[in-house]
Amino acid sequence: MSTLQSTTKQLNVKQQAKLAQKASKKLALLTEKEKNEALLTIADVLEKDSAYILEENKKDLSAGEKKCFSEALMDRLRLTADRVKDFADGLREVTELQDPVGEILSGWTLDNGLKVEQVRVPLGVIGMIYEARPNVTVDATGLALKSGNAIVLKGGSNALNSNKAIVAVIHKALENTKIPAEAVQFIASTDREAAGQLFTMKEHIDVLIPRGGGALIKTVVENATVPVLETGVGNCHIYVDQFADVEKALAILENAKTDRPAVCNAAETFIFHEAWLETNKDKVQALFEKHGIEVHGDEKAAELLPDVIPANEKDWVEEYLSLAVAVKVVSSVEEAVTHIERYGTKHSEAIVTENSENAQLFLNAVDAAAVYQNASTRFTDGSALGFGAEIGISTQKLHARGPMGLPALTTIKYRMTGDGQVR
Amino acid sequence: MSTLQSTTKQLNVKQQAKLAQKASKKLALLTEKEKNEALLTIADVLEKDSAYILEENKKDLSAGEKKCFSEALMDRLRLTADRVKDFADGLREVTELQDPVGEILSGWTLDNGLKVEQVRVPLGVIGMIYEARPNVTVDATGLALKSGNAIVLKGGSNALNSNKAIVAVIHKALENTKIPAEAVQFIASTDREAAGQLFTMKEHIDVLIPRGGGALIKTVVENATVPVLETGVGNCHIYVDQFADVEKALAILENAKTDRPAVCNAAETFIFHEAWLETNKDKVQALFEKHGIEVHGDEKAAELLPDVIPANEKDWVEEYLSLAVAVKVVSSVEEAVTHIERYGTKHSEAIVTENSENAQLFLNAVDAAAVYQNASTRFTDGSALGFGAEIGISTQKLHARGPMGLPALTTIKYRMTGDGQVR
Repeated sequence: MSTLQSTTKQLNVKQQAKLAQKASKKLALLTEKEKNEALLTIADVLEKDSAYILEENKKDLSAGEKKCFSEALMDRLRLTADRVKDFADGLREVTELQDPVGEILSGWTLDNGLKVEQVRVPLGVIGMIYEARPNVTVDATGLALKSGNAIVLKGGSNALNSNKAIVAVIHKALENTKIPAEAVQFIASTDREAAGQLFTMKEHIDVLIPRGGGALIKTVVENATVPVLETGVGNCHIYVDQFADVEKALAILENAKTDRPAVCNAAETFIFHEAWLETNKDKVQALFEKHGIEVHGDEKAAELLPDVIPANEKDWVEEYLSLAVAVKVVSSVEEAVTHIERYGTKHSEAIVTENSENAQLFLNAVDAAAVYQNASTRFTDGSALGFGAEIGISTQKLHARGPMGLPALTTIKYRMTGDGQVR
Repeated sequence: MSTLQSTTKQLNVKQQAKLAQKASKKLALLTEKEKNEALLTIADVLEKDSAYILEENKKDLSAGEKKCFSEALMDRLRLTADRVKDFADGLREVTELQDPVGEILSGWTLDNGLKVEQVRVPLGVIGMIYEARPNVTVDATGLALKSGNAIVLKGGSNALNSNKAIVAVIHKALENTKIPAEAVQFIASTDREAAGQLFTMKEHIDVLIPRGGGALIKTVVENATVPVLETGVGNCHIYVDQFADVEKALAILENAKTDRPAVCNAAETFIFHEAWLETNKDKVQALFEKHGIEVHGDEKAAELLPDVIPANEKDWVEEYLSLAVAVKVVSSVEEAVTHIERYGTKHSEAIVTENSENAQLFLNAVDAAAVYQNASTRFTDGSALGFGAEIGISTQKLHARGPMGLPALTTIKYRMTGDGQVR
């Protein structure tokens, strides 16, 4: 496997970013067919070399065991032949997505005959800063390359060996394709300074995408001068209105809280209209018991439900990402909106109601990437919405909001064609 | 005029931003008609109270005289009854623009019946940081309000009295409209700390837009954690190819350099193909002489043209914004592209050629908001392209690129309507 290992050269971060930028110029001009062929080649070579990847992954796993990582973290870190096959299949799916590059978004001709076109072009170089999951290495690379962008990867130190092995395999695969191997750069240095350099390398990196916990995202946002696509933190609320249908409400609460509690579109706070909760408290209690949900509630919640831990400010602010929930009781939809305005992270917010006036008030007034009437917040997801793979879920307002598919990795260019027009 | 002056209250920046944010929630729900009525009212009151504005403007002018401002700066600062009328007419034109808010960009229904809509919504609160021109106070306010956004204005200290007077008039006008006066906040404090507070007020401000010189923009980009819409610096190039038509080339060079040398879409560097310049040097020289253009050129330029000042690195990098030009001579379109890649600011870049292969190479390879074949870079402008008034010209790749009209001041929201869907 020496040929694989030798592909990770000892360059500094700036050199790597410059190589990526140079490669991005070539990549931007490739056809969809050429990019797809390269992705399919990577998929095949990943499967063929999966033994090498798993071997390197074992090093990360045994280091993780020594550091007494939680089973959840170990699970995120762990690769198997099946998981590597999933990576490869993921890349094959990306080849099925429409290439956004070259799309003419609009075109018109000025009175003087100047032809104006708005054309989609790649952003250039994407800086991806992420934590333990090695799958991000493959997924982000696939989406970046398909949309004509080079990528500089800075993965978490816990998955260093796995990520290095995956990138070595990608580099080997790219040797026989039209995509230059330099379009995929992996920063092997684990010191914080290396990531810090990415934050300010505006001349070579066009956008930073942090994927991971709130602390990681905060660090990037606060320190970067390169524009950031902020992803992920979801303190999502389900408001059960006075006019909520009982069956729908219970199904949505259950799904949003228990289907996958650790993901960002899971619910963290239930807000109940007082009158509704009074009528339906036994059913709500049965739901909590069924799943062993730990309830942190306000005073009114404690009056109506058993075993309520008194909620403090932290409960309204934080993501539990587990089978715990904060419960707030309100006496109007306006009060629910005010609570969400104060504590929401502008990710996904839902109202359960049969009253269209209350629904409209909620959907219009709540400022979030996704607002729902009578559905689970779990649908804020690229594949659920039919976008295919996503690079993340944007919780910012600029550039892209909500699940980001390939178009979020592009920008536009005005292409003007004339025959001597002047102003 | 005491009622006008009293509307500027003594609040700190954070209090002002919070008031703007609160007002933005109401403003976001207004109809286009309500917003247009408010803008027309502002226009009328600006005209009616123009004597007060001019009186306050005189204070800035006499302070400027004492500080020995250049005539160009004095001119930017100077208001007249006609200019105030232009402000009012500008607002009236904004009422003619289509309101982007509420537009449904796309909509579809998932197999499970969940209805998904992508709806345009206002960004929320815009922070505008700008230099001497008092017209920005009116223009930016008009565009922000029309697109349902509140605005926090931080103008230059040189125009402080003029800006305060304009905002006082706007506040007075808004009293009789549906738009809350708090939606327009003006930061009267001239200390740098006040602007600095805006840079990091992510909880209350959704985007910062700096308008002014390169130093101002750099300060904002480097210090802001609030997302920035970067505008304006244009180091624009005209490349005259070997296959350029002589008449078109001369007309484009003349227009791009001399029509309005101080604006960002004016040309700063001419790149000539060697063979073309050898043939047409006398005509080029005649053009330079006609306008008294100062030429800073490389060695080859000095060989072919008289009175060439040797160009140094600074000449390739900086905007002259005056009747000076840098001249570089190359022997291929690739060499021109490489020069632009190195020194361009990704604003507007043009090739003059009748050769379609060279044109395509240039248009595809040059990374800029606008790329031109056979037309002047001066068309990179909202009104020239038919967008109506613009909030600035974005030279960044995220969110908006090129001239920014009203849609650049909006984001989207996914609005989901279901009947109990869960995943």
